[in-house]
Amino acid sequence: MNADFLITNIGQLVVVPPGAGPKRGREMRDLGIVRDAVLAARDGVVVAVGPRDEVMPGVTLCPGASVVDAGGRLVGPGFVDAHTHLVFAGWRHEEYAMRSEGRSYLEIAEQGGGILSTVRATRNATLEELEARSREFLDLMLASGTTTAETKSGYGLTFEDEVKQLEVVRRLKEHHPVSLVSTFLGAHAVPEEYKGQREAYVGSVIGMLPEIRRLNLAEFVDVFCDAGAFTVPETERILRAAGDLGFGLKVHADELEWTGATELACRMGATSCDHLLRVSDEGMDMLARRPLGDESTATHTVAVLLPATSVFLGKTRGAPARALIDRGAPVALGTDFNPGTCTALSMPLVMTLACSVLHMSPEEAFTAATLNAAWAVGLGDRVGSLERGYEADIVVFDACDYREIPYRFGWNPVSRVYKKGREVWSKRPVVED
Amino acid sequence: MNADFLITNIGQLVVVPPGAGPKRGREMRDLGIVRDAVLAARDGVVVAVGPRDEVMPGVTLCPGASVVDAGGRLVGPGFVDAHTHLVFAGWRHEEYAMRSEGRSYLEIAEQGGGILSTVRATRNATLEELEARSREFLDLMLASGTTTAETKSGYGLTFEDEVKQLEVVRRLKEHHPVSLVSTFLGAHAVPEEYKGQREAYVGSVIGMLPEIRRLNLAEFVDVFCDAGAFTVPETERILRAAGDLGFGLKVHADELEWTGATELACRMGATSCDHLLRVSDEGMDMLARRPLGDESTATHTVAVLLPATSVFLGKTRGAPARALIDRGAPVALGTDFNPGTCTALSMPLVMTLACSVLHMSPEEAFTAATLNAAWAVGLGDRVGSLERGYEADIVVFDACDYREIPYRFGWNPVSRVYKKGREVWSKRPVVED
Repeated sequence: MNADFLITNIGQLVVVPPGAGPKRGREMRDLGIVRDAVLAARDGVVVAVGPRDEVMPGVTLCPGASVVDAGGRLVGPGFVDAHTHLVFAGWRHEEYAMRSEGRSYLEIAEQGGGILSTVRATRNATLEELEARSREFLDLMLASGTTTAETKSGYGLTFEDEVKQLEVVRRLKEHHPVSLVSTFLGAHAVPEEYKGQREAYVGSVIGMLPEIRRLNLAEFVDVFCDAGAFTVPETERILRAAGDLGFGLKVHADELEWTGATELACRMGATSCDHLLRVSDEGMDMLARRPLGDESTATHTVAVLLPATSVFLGKTRGAPARALIDRGAPVALGTDFNPGTCTALSMPLVMTLACSVLHMSPEEAFTAATLNAAWAVGLGDRVGSLERGYEADIVVFDACDYREIPYRFGWNPVSRVYKKGREVWSKRPVVED
Repeated sequence: MNADFLITNIGQLVVVPPGAGPKRGREMRDLGIVRDAVLAARDGVVVAVGPRDEVMPGVTLCPGASVVDAGGRLVGPGFVDAHTHLVFAGWRHEEYAMRSEGRSYLEIAEQGGGILSTVRATRNATLEELEARSREFLDLMLASGTTTAETKSGYGLTFEDEVKQLEVVRRLKEHHPVSLVSTFLGAHAVPEEYKGQREAYVGSVIGMLPEIRRLNLAEFVDVFCDAGAFTVPETERILRAAGDLGFGLKVHADELEWTGATELACRMGATSCDHLLRVSDEGMDMLARRPLGDESTATHTVAVLLPATSVFLGKTRGAPARALIDRGAPVALGTDFNPGTCTALSMPLVMTLACSVLHMSPEEAFTAATLNAAWAVGLGDRVGSLERGYEADIVVFDACDYREIPYRFGWNPVSRVYKKGREVWSKRPVVED
């Protein structure tokens, strides 16, 4: 077949073979490794992949095709970051310093910290300021091998300020190589002007949904359902309204305390539920259940784990990744990049923490950071794998073996990044002829 | 005074004011912050530092002096990494994968893993191979702001192979901008050829000391004193012989189990004892005791904590940093870079983990990663501070506030690095005129 993009001399290729849904249990360990491989793409989509000797005879290069020599190195799919809060103003390093000294969340909030301090800063920022800053963060993500990321609003908490955040995402979708999936998180916190009136704020969030939908500003709706945030019944109301409008559903679930948020997410057919440090056995069992009916069209609720957050917050216990995977729940990973509880931007760092702290295997971490993360953001049939028909989002690593990626702690292993078959980042400056 | 190097327009300068010894307790929080500062150096040594208006009138620039505009950013001393194992061959990512699945150290060792697998690889490597690889690691350390690092042998375990490692360090000392402090760690493990004859191997290590000394290949001698490694009496024998020859002393202490190694290190006047996850109350009290006599010449035993190691190994409990600091022990930080138990090379990452996981404050983390780490490697009167008379080892950060450095998890905050007043690394390529 014809190809306009070819990578040759791949020492080790991580394909992450896709199935009808996200990978579960032992499936998560199958990375479809190919040695001495080549990969060909056309119009940004993989058209041939496999051992050189098998694939090359069938490939015809179009005139002007790009040919890349991977130098015998490791090549894999671009990472998918399943959970970020990319668009915000300000930092919260004072709060970090206070927390390191053991101050409680309440003390920090009383001194003007917490989510609401970012809400104040974000409301005061212009769309252009937010866009410039978010672009810098996206550049850093891309440099760490992320080619697709979910990102949430939730620092506006008024219709105008939520739309401002989502509009930043819309602009970045047009102009930045990293593909973005947009989530409306109006139910992130109760804003100061609704203090003591959470019920009314829930109504306000529900009232924003139709217009967000009409403006086509978000694919998903998410709710921070936890102790001190929104209750399970409130979450259900918001998600039901969102589902009726055709949004995909996500839930910040069981991070601080068990509330039953995971069970709710599974019952409502959410695409993902995220955090899960305090998930119940029943919640895990529900996540592990394969959906009824046609697997390829049914919704699998993916467990998105965010180990950088629990480490950043100094929690001695992370999410029960091992129990989730062993029971058969599909597990994905994300950075949770945000100014309060996790400033990590790098998926390789998250993979290290997934293996070191959550006891995932390197194979499971790769699947969770690519294909399963893609399923967690509704794109599991398009990105997160290098199988034929998937987008040619490709990372060339400065490594020879996939296990080096989680193993090397805090190092950026990424040499080059291709998005839909086009080079979009390179560690070494490209020498112009 | 005359200066051949000047940094102006420093938004926030972290001086880390030195004292007669390493900082303890509340002293560790005094970073000597100066706003709108300048720093002048001559012949690689700081000659003037402070607020612009106070310092500038007294500075006369030599012809050809370098003048750097810090652009209002944060500037601080280069980091000192108090504990690394820089010189080795091979990786151990297979072992990392096995450990992530819960395999025990014994199982890993039985399958050929552990320290002895690195010993085999290092013995098989040439000096030139080891030098080239170590240089790459040092480049990465420098890019993360490290300007001085301690490094140990211990993957040779024969006289020739230990000397080979130490000779690599000697060469790097001559040719690499990062200053190295060399430690002989022959007592890292019992090599295969001495299996079951630990006593004989201890004798062999002691026998190597005079020649290492004569060749001037190491400033310190270190012993891995722990369960499964060397006992307290064996450690004492080795350190006593080393001390008699004039080596400084270090101990890998109380990492896996409490053995009394910290108490021994304090009794023998070791310059540092490192790891300390299982240190006893008595050990902490001994570390907290100021040395008798003249503080400026007495040996302070510095507690070197290595939080990246405990995170990398998935331990839920790190070293008791808070208790150590609160009791008055001088605390320093290091990466512990090595192929088995910690692959981190970045001191900013270690500072994040120190704050997030060990509950140190950002101020304490800065002191521990600079001045106290310098004391832990015997250089506390020369590096680790930007006070007058200290070496002009300087980092310009892409940040405005020192708290951003630990706060931003896994990001490289370093913009430029100067060693003795000379630019040795820059994030942005220098544009040639």
